[in-house]
Amino acid sequence: MDIASLIGIIGAMAMIFMAIVTSGGSLLTYVDIPSFLMTVLGSYFALMLNASLSEALGIFKTLGRVFRIQDYKEKDIITKLMAFSDKARREGLLALEEELEDLDDEFMKKGLRLVVDGTDAEIIRVLMETELNQIQGRHAAKIGIVNAWATLAPGLGMIGTVVGLIAMMKNLEDKSAIGPNMAVALITTLYGAIMANVLFIPMAGKLRTHDAMEAQVKEMVIEGVLSIQAGDNPRILGMKLLTYLSPTDRKSVESEILKD
Amino acid sequence: MDIASLIGIIGAMAMIFMAIVTSGGSLLTYVDIPSFLMTVLGSYFALMLNASLSEALGIFKTLGRVFRIQDYKEKDIITKLMAFSDKARREGLLALEEELEDLDDEFMKKGLRLVVDGTDAEIIRVLMETELNQIQGRHAAKIGIVNAWATLAPGLGMIGTVVGLIAMMKNLEDKSAIGPNMAVALITTLYGAIMANVLFIPMAGKLRTHDAMEAQVKEMVIEGVLSIQAGDNPRILGMKLLTYLSPTDRKSVESEILKD
Amino acid sequence: MDIASLIGIIGAMAMIFMAIVTSGGSLLTYVDIPSFLMTVLGSYFALMLNASLSEALGIFKTLGRVFRIQDYKEKDIITKLMAFSDKARREGLLALEEELEDLDDEFMKKGLRLVVDGTDAEIIRVLMETELNQIQGRHAAKIGIVNAWATLAPGLGMIGTVVGLIAMMKNLEDKSAIGPNMAVALITTLYGAIMANVLFIPMAGKLRTHDAMEAQVKEMVIEGVLSIQAGDNPRILGMKLLTYLSPTDRKSVESEILKD
Amino acid sequence: MDIASLIGIIGAMAMIFMAIVTSGGSLLTYVDIPSFLMTVLGSYFALMLNASLSEALGIFKTLGRVFRIQDYKEKDIITKLMAFSDKARREGLLALEEELEDLDDEFMKKGLRLVVDGTDAEIIRVLMETELNQIQGRHAAKIGIVNAWATLAPGLGMIGTVVGLIAMMKNLEDKSAIGPNMAVALITTLYGAIMANVLFIPMAGKLRTHDAMEAQVKEMVIEGVLSIQAGDNPRILGMKLLTYLSPTDRKSVESEILKD
Amino acid sequence: MDIASLIGIIGAMAMIFMAIVTSGGSLLTYVDIPSFLMTVLGSYFALMLNASLSEALGIFKTLGRVFRIQDYKEKDIITKLMAFSDKARREGLLALEEELEDLDDEFMKKGLRLVVDGTDAEIIRVLMETELNQIQGRHAAKIGIVNAWATLAPGLGMIGTVVGLIAMMKNLEDKSAIGPNMAVALITTLYGAIMANVLFIPMAGKLRTHDAMEAQVKEMVIEGVLSIQAGDNPRILGMKLLTYLSPTDRKSVESEILKD
Repeated sequence: MDIASLIGIIGAMAMIFMAIVTSGGSLLTYVDIPSFLMTVLGSYFALMLNASLSEALGIFKTLGRVFRIQDYKEKDIITKLMAFSDKARREGLLALEEELEDLDDEFMKKGLRLVVDGTDAEIIRVLMETELNQIQGRHAAKIGIVNAWATLAPGLGMIGTVVGLIAMMKNLEDKSAIGPNMAVALITTLYGAIMANVLFIPMAGKLRTHDAMEAQVKEMVIEGVLSIQAGDNPRILGMKLLTYLSPTDRKSVESEILKD
Repeated sequence: MDIASLIGIIGAMAMIFMAIVTSGGSLLTYVDIPSFLMTVLGSYFALMLNASLSEALGIFKTLGRVFRIQDYKEKDIITKLMAFSDKARREGLLALEEELEDLDDEFMKKGLRLVVDGTDAEIIRVLMETELNQIQGRHAAKIGIVNAWATLAPGLGMIGTVVGLIAMMKNLEDKSAIGPNMAVALITTLYGAIMANVLFIPMAGKLRTHDAMEAQVKEMVIEGVLSIQAGDNPRILGMKLLTYLSPTDRKSVESEILKD
Repeated sequence: MDIASLIGIIGAMAMIFMAIVTSGGSLLTYVDIPSFLMTVLGSYFALMLNASLSEALGIFKTLGRVFRIQDYKEKDIITKLMAFSDKARREGLLALEEELEDLDDEFMKKGLRLVVDGTDAEIIRVLMETELNQIQGRHAAKIGIVNAWATLAPGLGMIGTVVGLIAMMKNLEDKSAIGPNMAVALITTLYGAIMANVLFIPMAGKLRTHDAMEAQVKEMVIEGVLSIQAGDNPRILGMKLLTYLSPTDRKSVESEILKD
Repeated sequence: MDIASLIGIIGAMAMIFMAIVTSGGSLLTYVDIPSFLMTVLGSYFALMLNASLSEALGIFKTLGRVFRIQDYKEKDIITKLMAFSDKARREGLLALEEELEDLDDEFMKKGLRLVVDGTDAEIIRVLMETELNQIQGRHAAKIGIVNAWATLAPGLGMIGTVVGLIAMMKNLEDKSAIGPNMAVALITTLYGAIMANVLFIPMAGKLRTHDAMEAQVKEMVIEGVLSIQAGDNPRILGMKLLTYLSPTDRKSVESEILKD
Repeated sequence: MDIASLIGIIGAMAMIFMAIVTSGGSLLTYVDIPSFLMTVLGSYFALMLNASLSEALGIFKTLGRVFRIQDYKEKDIITKLMAFSDKARREGLLALEEELEDLDDEFMKKGLRLVVDGTDAEIIRVLMETELNQIQGRHAAKIGIVNAWATLAPGLGMIGTVVGLIAMMKNLEDKSAIGPNMAVALITTLYGAIMANVLFIPMAGKLRTHDAMEAQVKEMVIEGVLSIQAGDNPRILGMKLLTYLSPTDRKSVESEILKD
């Protein structure tokens, strides 16, 4: 569970509830089913026009990922690649074949299998980078859908408010109704602003971070696989891969790995 | 028929109608022919200034594509290219000529004809990529027109509202007319916001998705054609092409194709 | 005359006039010379600060281009290049010299003269692409000036409105003057919005389209000139150049040209 | 003196003064020292947080450049480079040494000195392009500071207005004070809008134009220096360099130079 | 201590306090704990959803860097690299080993160690550029978090204001409460605007400047290390590196260094 996501969403909602309470209003004032349908469902319908059916249905799964902690195990990957490099230098590239069975990193497995098969380095690079590009393309499409919702929700909220304002304007005689009508009209704007600022904009941000981290780890794997094929010294391989880590992570890994 | 587009547009409109009804107003309040002409026709005229005549007239056809389901038949394409690759390796590149007759994928046909004609690989790549770039350029121009309308519609809506506000301000004596005049003034803003948020922004999004999918399939075809010319093993060809599919599609195709 | 531009600008203006009439106001309400000077002249002065003197004075010529129809005669260009290619293969590159006299496409002439002079292919490409880049750079600068005006006009309109609002606020005693003063204050906003949404944003859009079309035709010419120098088969040359046309244009040209 | 900048800034200010006068207000209404400090000084302080001390202090010098006319003397540069090219072909590259003394174009001088020193062409290109990149980087940083002020000024203006509105709202009893208080509150918005739309946005635009022109001339010089080293024919050199000029400039220079 | 940052933040805050005082209000009017929590804490919670836990907690350290003066000691770096270059030419690359001990620039040390180890130039470049890219990627991620807060703060401020407006509208009977309620509602907008315009937007700007300066110095180091390995003349090395300095810095360094 990504604890930051959970704290973030609960905390932000709590702040909004606090603002409602300290405004002296009752929570019920802020609950209006038609406004909710108009803003939430309306923008989701607009999203269905924007996206393919599977993308529109898949967005909830995408949003769910925001709460899943991502651990890319860079340390394990570096250790493994260095071990493979060592083995390959001592016993030959074919000796890696038996290691592939237990490998559960599909991306690394695929790359190493190509190495074992004796595929040309340039082809391995192209195949792995194409795959990485495809993965990033799919992520970008999914994040794009979340961003689209972040744009459409305030749009629909604004439409709801204008609809409410027009109704109110048409009927200005009943002075006592002006305030409450105006209040209701503003609720769709509120819902749209919350959807954008508290939910979808931050969620798209977190998904982008996940994507960037995954891409970096995969680039590290490509670098490592090609380095193994080229017969690089495990130490050089280690140094190359360590540049992909942040200085703090690097320190701790460096002492473990390179001093052996 | 793209069911998501249909549900999306009908659903979003239904939500707006619901908002109108629950605002206590009558639907007629929201229908104002001059405001409609001002916003819809006015922004379309501005679009004619923005675009060429054929682009302006062609936008309705472009928008119609939003409701057409796009199936690029990646599976068939991969199967076909693998079969061609197999044949070419067994019987020579010239043997592909007879296959070209029945091929209805114009892009692949053109590429393979170049292969059969013995054209140089680099020239084939340049010709096919130029064509793909041209296709994407034309799509981008069309999507650009939809985006331009999405920008101009709220602009004209805003102009209509300011025109209405000025008229109302000039004539504040009749207190009872202020509300209704204001209501009318706001209607062009409402129309502009609906055109942008419920129609053109989502539609441009869907067209961009179509374009991205088509480009990806065409890149797969280029890869495949060049692979056939290079005499690649059908299995390698299959693996290369599979990287263009999403993991779920890939799984199903992989078992069918590569295990033969 | 670009008929779309003419219809567009007249139509959009007509819609705004209609909105004025149906708002029940008189056209005179919307004419205010100081507001006009403030918005139109004020933003033009700001543009003079933004641009060089020649750019600021040249913007009207640039805007005039919006109404000139652009015909790049792709068909003629392809036919001509294919004929040159044929001649060059039969009679040698020097035989092209006599053809250059009557050529009124300066860009193609310059390229072919370099071919006739026996200049190296790489130098020809660099010279022609540098020239194309320079042309596009100059166009982009001009379109940038139009976009700058599109940004500055609503800015100055907004300044005019705030000036008016402040004057009105200072003098709230005379209740009957509030409305009219507010109306006047809003007129600069109206003018700014019209300048941006009905004039300069669409016009910049059309100029961008012109530029893209011209660049594409010039790229086609570069391709053709280099193909002639390389001694390409006219048929291959034709196929290369046809990829620069849209499918509909291509169909009609293809049957004319390639079947000879 | 850049006459367009001068006319632009004076003209735009005159239009705003005219709007003030025709709004029926006195100029004094629009002068409010605390609002001025809040917007102008406040945004400048925010800029100091944004920039380094030397950048913040240097912005006034940068803004001053907007009024200095820029003449890059392309004609002279081309003539000079052609003369050098001629001399180098006749008397050898070393003969250029004596010419370097009187050259006051530091960039060209540096390039030619490298040529005279017999430096490798690739190193000359790298050194000169690195220098051009550095120059452009410094310009971009300075223009970025102007843009930052253009963003911060309306931001601080808006903060001033909200501060004023809150004060006014707290004290609604005195009806006669509402208008004037509101007027004062709006003045910071006015100042911020003027700073952005009349000063900093246009000024950043002019600085960008200067930078683009300088970069182009410097690219021309790099091209010329390398061409001289390569021993190009002065005529070819002239043609290469002329592509960097606009068609009108080119015409006049062409007749002067190439026909010799 | 970065004096510009300190003056900037204190000065801008002082201007806002001055605006409050001259608005005739008391400072207490502008202090509202629930509004503060709603805007500041609410946007920070949204930021936690946006970022990883370590990024969200680390933002305060990032913001602290804004007040730390950055001195990259370009002069020392150039002098040192020239000395190394000289030594390497006289005594061989291995002679650099003893110099590495006292070097506290980790980046240069790493590069020179690779040189001493006899690593291939291309591998050194790749390793150092990968490291620089990684550093810049981490900086960009951190600056991205500050920008995210700059976006979310006004968003949450706006939500707070809409919540307040709705409460006020529901309860219009008590005329005397309208003003104060409205005032409170606006305070979250004020806080959000201050957070964005006075704090986070300028701070992100300063961090970007730091990053650009560091990247430039590191590029200079890469250039220098590779130049040393290539056995360049110290003078050429000096000239190469000087192009990375601004003209004023360059002047002073040039006279010191190159005339030796």
